[in-house]
Amino acid sequence: MHDARLTAARVARLATVDPDGRPHLVPIVFALDGNTLYSAVDRKPKRSQTLRRIENARARPDVTILVDHYEDEWSRLWWIRVRGRARVLDDGEERERALGLLQEKYPQYRDEPPDGPVLAVDVTEAREWTASATQPTTPGPERIDRS
Amino acid sequence: MHDARLTAARVARLATVDPDGRPHLVPIVFALDGNTLYSAVDRKPKRSQTLRRIENARARPDVTILVDHYEDEWSRLWWIRVRGRARVLDDGEERERALGLLQEKYPQYRDEPPDGPVLAVDVTEAREWTASATQPTTPGPERIDRS
Repeated sequence: MHDARLTAARVARLATVDPDGRPHLVPIVFALDGNTLYSAVDRKPKRSQTLRRIENARARPDVTILVDHYEDEWSRLWWIRVRGRARVLDDGEERERALGLLQEKYPQYRDEPPDGPVLAVDVTEAREWTASATQPTTPGPERIDRS
Repeated sequence: MHDARLTAARVARLATVDPDGRPHLVPIVFALDGNTLYSAVDRKPKRSQTLRRIENARARPDVTILVDHYEDEWSRLWWIRVRGRARVLDDGEERERALGLLQEKYPQYRDEPPDGPVLAVDVTEAREWTASATQPTTPGPERIDRS
């Protein structure tokens, strides 16, 4: 994963699956390290340390993450969709390293570091789509992907 | 559903569930009409009229849609998450009406109207989250939601 647009993106959306089988969706901030994407849970009172996204990822680790660019000039639309396996880091060295990467990317985290678990997603599949590649006469990735 | 931010949003993300149970995610443009949210499939060659999102929604109509606002000033973050039941409109009057709403909101659709199916999502649940409501000392909606 060395996609400059993915690395630079400030926000992504994380989809997990609820226990009842319905999709769950939240925006996340994230940092990429090699093939692993990290996001943290914001500081919370102890009673709500267990968040739906985290519990979903523990139970069903196949998650999907989307980064997209929107503007009214539709020929400039693009998105990157990542699928991967999630691991919940409740503590330990990898979690500390991930928090460091997040603080590097987001100064907002430096004042108030997240104290909840870190979600690590090992990317197994990435797909990019760019509007300019999907003109009717030029079948592009989305055609094949049938999104 | 009379949320001004939701109505005004230009882009949302649609989560469905793949046949293998993994979440699927795409950005969508949409128009809201009462409690129903409509999105269309862009013009495609006939061979790819069936898109993953559409087939997922036919098979498992419980879908989730997210509209969010990101900026580096995190106290201004917000999101709106909608859950609903999807219906696929392959033709008919409601589809035509939805296309009219989409063309009204997005002039881009006027030159090249989408000729695929329209996805109608009847909203059953909506949740809003605003950063300013979730300071550690002021439990807000996200606490209850445990997202």
